[in-house]
Amino acid sequence: MIFSSALLANPPCVCLPRKFPVRCSSLPVSAASQLRSTQFDLKTYWTTLITEIDQNLEKAITVKYPEQIYESMRYSVLAKGTKRAPPVMCVAACELFGVNRIAAFPTACALEMVHAASLIHDDLPCMDDDPSRRGQPSNHTVYGVDIAILAGDALFPLGFQHIVSHTPPHLVPEPRVLRVIAEIARAVGSTGMAAGQFLDLEGEPNLVEFVQEKKFGEMSECSAVCGGFLAGADDDEIQSLRRYGRAVGVLYQVVDDILEAKAQTPRDEEKKKKKGKSYVAFYGVEKAMEVAEELRAKAKEELDRFKKYGDNVLPLYSFIDYAADREFSVVDSR
Amino acid sequence: MIFSSALLANPPCVCLPRKFPVRCSSLPVSAASQLRSTQFDLKTYWTTLITEIDQNLEKAITVKYPEQIYESMRYSVLAKGTKRAPPVMCVAACELFGVNRIAAFPTACALEMVHAASLIHDDLPCMDDDPSRRGQPSNHTVYGVDIAILAGDALFPLGFQHIVSHTPPHLVPEPRVLRVIAEIARAVGSTGMAAGQFLDLEGEPNLVEFVQEKKFGEMSECSAVCGGFLAGADDDEIQSLRRYGRAVGVLYQVVDDILEAKAQTPRDEEKKKKKGKSYVAFYGVEKAMEVAEELRAKAKEELDRFKKYGDNVLPLYSFIDYAADREFSVVDSR
Repeated sequence: MIFSSALLANPPCVCLPRKFPVRCSSLPVSAASQLRSTQFDLKTYWTTLITEIDQNLEKAITVKYPEQIYESMRYSVLAKGTKRAPPVMCVAACELFGVNRIAAFPTACALEMVHAASLIHDDLPCMDDDPSRRGQPSNHTVYGVDIAILAGDALFPLGFQHIVSHTPPHLVPEPRVLRVIAEIARAVGSTGMAAGQFLDLEGEPNLVEFVQEKKFGEMSECSAVCGGFLAGADDDEIQSLRRYGRAVGVLYQVVDDILEAKAQTPRDEEKKKKKGKSYVAFYGVEKAMEVAEELRAKAKEELDRFKKYGDNVLPLYSFIDYAADREFSVVDSR
Repeated sequence: MIFSSALLANPPCVCLPRKFPVRCSSLPVSAASQLRSTQFDLKTYWTTLITEIDQNLEKAITVKYPEQIYESMRYSVLAKGTKRAPPVMCVAACELFGVNRIAAFPTACALEMVHAASLIHDDLPCMDDDPSRRGQPSNHTVYGVDIAILAGDALFPLGFQHIVSHTPPHLVPEPRVLRVIAEIARAVGSTGMAAGQFLDLEGEPNLVEFVQEKKFGEMSECSAVCGGFLAGADDDEIQSLRRYGRAVGVLYQVVDDILEAKAQTPRDEEKKKKKGKSYVAFYGVEKAMEVAEELRAKAKEELDRFKKYGDNVLPLYSFIDYAADREFSVVDSR
């Protein structure tokens, strides 16, 4: 084996509320957890990265024959209003260790491709049956179910191909590239997002934590871990990035559900039914807010290890507060 | 870039009849092309390999939670009566260069996984709408369309993950593993099998050569090329393996179509319609037989380069005659 199975194995659940004690804001937390990210301009950092990543993605998926499959792929990957959260997380994790972001761009683009592929398939009528995504018609609504399936099937391998062909070898040795590929494969496959989607379809309400972690935590976890692999992080650092990334991904989704519940926008019964496996639907808003605070604290704790990297850790800190507070929109100005 | 774009680029079509002159059996052919493979016991070679590959696949996809997705994956990958043509081609190409087959098994298993994933999605009602595959109900017929899509989505990345985690590093340096991953990604994606399936759905009858090459030539080409990459073949050898593999893959399918037409088994109108983009349907049996002979000769010519490897080339020769003549069944004795 090139790598030990421990490195590739699915890690244990790390951010379920039952797995760590409930912490109120009045309880003491670590010094690093108390650090706020107010001194860091996350919006500029993020929007700058979005521009760079968009430029890379635009070049990575040019239209060739047969055109329609590429148009369908581009429709989802290059959709306006996309936060590029997985790529930005990956770049920030790589920069944490002082490695140039250029090393991370190919993997960052690949993460966006496989994420888009996963969402295209999740939206299909036989899955979540979502006719729209990010404010525009879903891929299958525009191109039909058959093309949408093929667009997803083409985006998954394109991501892996893009990493191999574009990762700069002078910055990233081959063994690290292989770790990145294995990590993305793990995250999107039957131990990751595909398992989450499967259990979401099953409709078992008491699987809410598992489904949330797999559907929303895996991509964030994988993105942080890939950034670490690219930069040559050691095993303990990778494990911290893993737990941090998963906590931030689930936190973002829990807060989304809370905001939606609080906004009390008119929703039809069908949509309510589909959202049945959220923390809010299962536990109620109050408990979901507790869960969110626990996840915020947990994510910050995991960053304690990285204090030695100084200000390089600020983007990762800022993502936590952004996920919890949503103080601005990173896609306003696009 | 880790590899030059030329290595990863989609090669030009090599086995379309219009791309090389029609050759009758009375015309002179190269010495190597005249070599027959009668002295080689392909059936024993192949059936032995099937057993070894089946054992590896059995271990590679164990049932875990959530069980049903793994059962669906195993249902297609471990189906009885599977010839394991891509894995066997990959192993034979690796052994051509004197490298132990153990080096090729992880990639061979991955090829079977991604091939199965591709077939699961091709069979879907919105695609080719095939209720059965290899004499048993299609994956979606047993597990439903949603699970079938997820099983495919999980098998693609599992293939890549399996290569990274199981390829023995003392036999295969990391750069070769990366070439293999990029090659498989190319073959299954929008420049390969996904493009073939897309154009098959489009139903343009004059695209018969393109669709046949993409749907049936890519997997064989990719398998031969991956065997070469694993063994450290040089660029010219890889190009020969590429053209050889593609010719054998298309040859196999053309002969399948000829045999089916000659057998004149009862077929319903729907099936006839689906088979519309075969050489036989487009050119008729006689012209298809000419095409088959051209492909046989072309494939043998490509092996001229490998005469220096002595008897190691015999399995690759034998595959050509097997694809053309079907003198035995490799899955009889299973």
